Amino acid sequence: MTDISAVKEALRRQHIETPSWAYGNSGTRFKVFPQPGVPRTPQEKIDDAAQVHRFTGVAPSVALHIPWDKVDDYAALAEYAEERGVRIGAINSNVFQDEDYKLGSVTNPDPAVRKKALNHLLECVDIMDATGSRDLKLWFSDGTNYPGQDDIRDRQDRLFEALQAVYERLGDDQRMLLEYKLFEPAFYTTDVPDWGTSYAHCLKLGPKAQVVVDTGHHAPGTNIEFIVAFLLREGKLGGFDFNSRFYADDDLMVGAADPFQLFRIMYEVVRGGGHEPEANIAFMLDQCHNIEPKIQGQIRSVMNVQEATAKALLVDAEALREAQRSGDVLGANAVFMDAFNTDVRPLLAELREEMGLHPDPIAAYKASGYYERIVAERVGGTQAGWGA
Amino acid sequence: MTDISAVKEALRRQHIETPSWAYGNSGTRFKVFPQPGVPRTPQEKIDDAAQVHRFTGVAPSVALHIPWDKVDDYAALAEYAEERGVRIGAINSNVFQDEDYKLGSVTNPDPAVRKKALNHLLECVDIMDATGSRDLKLWFSDGTNYPGQDDIRDRQDRLFEALQAVYERLGDDQRMLLEYKLFEPAFYTTDVPDWGTSYAHCLKLGPKAQVVVDTGHHAPGTNIEFIVAFLLREGKLGGFDFNSRFYADDDLMVGAADPFQLFRIMYEVVRGGGHEPEANIAFMLDQCHNIEPKIQGQIRSVMNVQEATAKALLVDAEALREAQRSGDVLGANAVFMDAFNTDVRPLLAELREEMGLHPDPIAAYKASGYYERIVAERVGGTQAGWGA
Amino acid sequence: MTDISAVKEALRRQHIETPSWAYGNSGTRFKVFPQPGVPRTPQEKIDDAAQVHRFTGVAPSVALHIPWDKVDDYAALAEYAEERGVRIGAINSNVFQDEDYKLGSVTNPDPAVRKKALNHLLECVDIMDATGSRDLKLWFSDGTNYPGQDDIRDRQDRLFEALQAVYERLGDDQRMLLEYKLFEPAFYTTDVPDWGTSYAHCLKLGPKAQVVVDTGHHAPGTNIEFIVAFLLREGKLGGFDFNSRFYADDDLMVGAADPFQLFRIMYEVVRGGGHEPEANIAFMLDQCHNIEPKIQGQIRSVMNVQEATAKALLVDAEALREAQRSGDVLGANAVFMDAFNTDVRPLLAELREEMGLHPDPIAAYKASGYYERIVAERVGGTQAGWGA
Amino acid sequence: MTDISAVKEALRRQHIETPSWAYGNSGTRFKVFPQPGVPRTPQEKIDDAAQVHRFTGVAPSVALHIPWDKVDDYAALAEYAEERGVRIGAINSNVFQDEDYKLGSVTNPDPAVRKKALNHLLECVDIMDATGSRDLKLWFSDGTNYPGQDDIRDRQDRLFEALQAVYERLGDDQRMLLEYKLFEPAFYTTDVPDWGTSYAHCLKLGPKAQVVVDTGHHAPGTNIEFIVAFLLREGKLGGFDFNSRFYADDDLMVGAADPFQLFRIMYEVVRGGGHEPEANIAFMLDQCHNIEPKIQGQIRSVMNVQEATAKALLVDAEALREAQRSGDVLGANAVFMDAFNTDVRPLLAELREEMGLHPDPIAAYKASGYYERIVAERVGGTQAGWGA
Repeated sequence: MTDISAVKEALRRQHIETPSWAYGNSGTRFKVFPQPGVPRTPQEKIDDAAQVHRFTGVAPSVALHIPWDKVDDYAALAEYAEERGVRIGAINSNVFQDEDYKLGSVTNPDPAVRKKALNHLLECVDIMDATGSRDLKLWFSDGTNYPGQDDIRDRQDRLFEALQAVYERLGDDQRMLLEYKLFEPAFYTTDVPDWGTSYAHCLKLGPKAQVVVDTGHHAPGTNIEFIVAFLLREGKLGGFDFNSRFYADDDLMVGAADPFQLFRIMYEVVRGGGHEPEANIAFMLDQCHNIEPKIQGQIRSVMNVQEATAKALLVDAEALREAQRSGDVLGANAVFMDAFNTDVRPLLAELREEMGLHPDPIAAYKASGYYERIVAERVGGTQAGWGA
Repeated sequence: MTDISAVKEALRRQHIETPSWAYGNSGTRFKVFPQPGVPRTPQEKIDDAAQVHRFTGVAPSVALHIPWDKVDDYAALAEYAEERGVRIGAINSNVFQDEDYKLGSVTNPDPAVRKKALNHLLECVDIMDATGSRDLKLWFSDGTNYPGQDDIRDRQDRLFEALQAVYERLGDDQRMLLEYKLFEPAFYTTDVPDWGTSYAHCLKLGPKAQVVVDTGHHAPGTNIEFIVAFLLREGKLGGFDFNSRFYADDDLMVGAADPFQLFRIMYEVVRGGGHEPEANIAFMLDQCHNIEPKIQGQIRSVMNVQEATAKALLVDAEALREAQRSGDVLGANAVFMDAFNTDVRPLLAELREEMGLHPDPIAAYKASGYYERIVAERVGGTQAGWGA
Repeated sequence: MTDISAVKEALRRQHIETPSWAYGNSGTRFKVFPQPGVPRTPQEKIDDAAQVHRFTGVAPSVALHIPWDKVDDYAALAEYAEERGVRIGAINSNVFQDEDYKLGSVTNPDPAVRKKALNHLLECVDIMDATGSRDLKLWFSDGTNYPGQDDIRDRQDRLFEALQAVYERLGDDQRMLLEYKLFEPAFYTTDVPDWGTSYAHCLKLGPKAQVVVDTGHHAPGTNIEFIVAFLLREGKLGGFDFNSRFYADDDLMVGAADPFQLFRIMYEVVRGGGHEPEANIAFMLDQCHNIEPKIQGQIRSVMNVQEATAKALLVDAEALREAQRSGDVLGANAVFMDAFNTDVRPLLAELREEMGLHPDPIAAYKASGYYERIVAERVGGTQAGWGA
Repeated sequence: MTDISAVKEALRRQHIETPSWAYGNSGTRFKVFPQPGVPRTPQEKIDDAAQVHRFTGVAPSVALHIPWDKVDDYAALAEYAEERGVRIGAINSNVFQDEDYKLGSVTNPDPAVRKKALNHLLECVDIMDATGSRDLKLWFSDGTNYPGQDDIRDRQDRLFEALQAVYERLGDDQRMLLEYKLFEPAFYTTDVPDWGTSYAHCLKLGPKAQVVVDTGHHAPGTNIEFIVAFLLREGKLGGFDFNSRFYADDDLMVGAADPFQLFRIMYEVVRGGGHEPEANIAFMLDQCHNIEPKIQGQIRSVMNVQEATAKALLVDAEALREAQRSGDVLGANAVFMDAFNTDVRPLLAELREEMGLHPDPIAAYKASGYYERIVAERVGGTQAGWGA
């Protein structure tokens, strides 16, 4: 039997980080559809992130993206966040939007470009120092589009050289999270295409280097929960970039495309103790609300992660273990599906009320008038987006 | 035995159309890397297309994209092209870049948006009248991102209504080519996701509606040459949008990712008589030269299609048929592979010389100084790209 | 608001057919693991199918596979079934297990093999006459393994010739259901690889030819519910072969791999009226219980289809339509997800009790002692399997 | 400029191992089509393997599969091979065809089954001792079909325990090669699903544990040459199981589905020095000739690997490096493609004649009368196949 109060306690402790860029405009290569009320400054993004936390109670931090969130005074930005009730989360580097990076950043054949990219990464650690951020999230769009374009192996050498320099710069309480991605924007090779590559580099670097799993960055058919279980077993899972997809890196709201997969992932997290705060797994969202309202989209996503986690916590571990041990295939699957088939929304509504929140965050947000206010107020200026 | 002069004759007759937008800037959602010398007007795009024809001798037409190639006087544009030695090819409609199209164009739930989109399509037929273009190429980015977002079936009704209105507007010598695409920019449903959907609509519309196969628009594992063979058998193959991909719709140079697949496709074209001019198959390129020089990229692509076609024409049809009939699996495969393994570059060099061209189009283009000239001259103004 | 009694009424009327071969042994190319108590005769398979109906109340028919279920007297077999409370469902032809079919059946380059295959198909219609079966299910493993091996287009000609001969042999109340499959056992081309091919042939054949959708027979990323909606709109959806998969044609229990996908499929069925008996959609299971108990596996699968259907019926159609019409992306998705997130197991338990059944079919079956009895009794003889 | 005699020398030194099971019958789960003349004993398989070496000159070893190749006296079998001009290659374990292995072998929840499986693996090392074989190839079909069926993480613990026990048993000159595979026969999780998992285990085990890359065991879109380059860089590439595929693990002849991919793989091998004998990369075939003649199929496959290697060796390394360094995307790709587009068949014919062989191994084999002889002589007995 599952202890409901323990489930609730675990859900209270699970924090989900929202990304500053999710509040800005995003789109596809075909078109970015701007939305009314979109933030124009890092501060306004933080304002929006604070709303997500206000209504869900479990999203107390916001990730930054440099240079999209470039400010003169990062300490002041951190203070600004604190005043709004949130804190600065992971610092995300960006080495893919300068003209220089056309053929790569840290793996570019040109040493001058590599140096420039490395300097940016080191600057991000400076920002971590200033903001008190723990995690540096590294995603490299580096790769090639055509067979023969560059040397696969040399690029690994260059990559490791940069990673090592960054690793050495990290403070005692700082980490680097190395993201992998199958493809896009590179269309032939990607320099960190899969968890194995990220894992191998992190292993060589040391304990402060950890793998981050973006749920949309795999080949079709990849069993993501296996990777999660494996990395947890190895002590190398640093966190998640949550989103969902039907095809490629679609960046839809997490849980929207395959809620059962999200449940299976969260089950492995729970199974491996990854939901405990001391496991230091960063649960981050990384999505694009191309056509849906952004703050609502983030709230819904936080709720989706919570629901999947709740179901995972509800799995009857003892019954499952017994069925597994005895080779009862259908019995074990039935125990597992029982949890998934449970409607956990009442449980979460109850928890929210216990936390002093409205049981329905979406309804509460809608009723708050915040959206109407930002639409009215945020007029003029340049809307935030991937390019700014 | 294959008749080499017949092969050459067929290669001479095969025309490959280049798209005006391939000469402009392109990129991914992450970044568009601008290139020096990129055209700023439809006329400059035509100038570039004329270079591809000048050095290959088999690219005498250029497709337009409306409104990217909007001009006041289309007849004058057609004349301009003719003066440069090329003609206007297919007119490509664009119903995906207005704010109104966020939730779809001809399948939008809002009737006013649908009407606007239809009007654009009809305007494209006007442009066909003015330019003497035969083909209207229709690609709809329409679809949904989330389950439940809109009604799949209603959208088909709306789609057909628009297609029918366009069909009725077509002149006697005009056609509409309906493109399909698995996904992107829509990430849950796409309203014309596969050849079956395009085929079913074209069949109902009538003989002037034909399917166009974009080689990058399929699910992983799809056997494209089967589709080509099937559509040719049904008299419903209108043409190709050539490009290549390793992952999704990568839009790399045709033949760059899987030259053997391109050969198999061209074999089915030849097998079905699709290379004969009277088959009216439009061989069009549709690619993005994100990181490689654009004119060179087009020349290389034209050459790749030629090489694949040459190999297809070299298949010893009689020997193949005999091996197939007798169930000789390895024998039939060997006949097929013999053609693929043949180095056809000398044959094509010879053909070019017979056509009064330099045997090596890339070298000749490089030596021409054209690139240096446009880089020097095309300064100022707004470079062409997907957004303009 | 949804009318619960109407939902229950619809669920009562939805019949799910189980396949005789699901009760026999199955496996992969690596190994077939035999199970105790497996039937040795068509009659014993029917006995097992009757158990599934006995405990679920909605599985009143069993599909046969010829020659696996070959008997001397089919009328007697039909009577036998009726005495057990079930009836004979679809007749499934088998033209893939004779030595002659190594290079194909109805598309074989050898006319003698084609004739043999056609004769088998016609014999299946004879069996339909004798058993009163309505549906002939046609699946062709025909295809090629190597490029060049055979002529793709000739094979289509041969295929259509055979289909036409079978079509003409059908009685007034008989149908043929043409299945498609991406690949396996053919590994290069398959002669009916996708719904478009099946649809095109069925359209030419006439109204008695319908497409059957096997949920495991698609390329990765294919949106199956789109196909379902499209075929229903065209009046060409004949039925389903239900199963589920993570990778290829894994033939796992329906709903086991992606319950949300099954829900979306059933929603489109309901949306298109396909759940109404007069729509004549055959809801069939086609799975392999390689490692799990077979009868239990079938019961679970029937329940999974019911649960997905119940959720689909619970979608608040009015609220959904309103949100869709107004372009409320998140609102429409929320209405849709509300239904999916509902725990319908209590509703189904209630329905079963109203039907005079035990609310928990698995528990009831386990308590019945049937499994222990067949394990004890079915000793000696040859266990049924794919090869017999 | 490439030194042709060095190319030839390298090709002479590249040895390709054929698998004993490729000479026996194989098929799909639907049907195994037996072929005339198929061996009935391990000795007859060796006879066939010797033919492949006789006509190609570069296939001097044959891999065994235990228990399919079980004999009383392995030393005698090794001698038998030597008399035929070949030697025993890798020993392949088989822990997937006993009833006990239904839910796994070394990862089975039942400790008794795990022990049995481990004993088999250790027995395989005994056979290595007896035959002088260097490599133990480990492929585990272990995994689960249903979510919840077993504990993903426990299974890793069990796996490592077994691997470690085997590792400790290895002699100084013996290695274990750990194969990975995305799926099949397990359809939900596989215990060694990707190179990362294999790599992580091999790293912990030590230098005698190496990863083996089966070219058919990846998710769609996986860049195999990247994996090859990465593993070579890490000193962890033990060898290849060559075959090709369009869809899943189709096990077609290597190079048949995507000859350009094979070229890219061999280029990375050459780039990383993996073609040098001292690199100890085992180039093994692992294919299923379901419908084509087996010995011919092996000869063709050996030739395909040779052709790809020849092309890889012909890449103008200096020109490539220069183009890569200068960021000349099209130039670098052109150098790469020049090698691929070269017809290397004349070069290989020349090499064979220099080696005292017929320039056309297929023609020579066909003319030898060997096939007719085995068809006539191998009558009666039980044909070898996956089950025996």
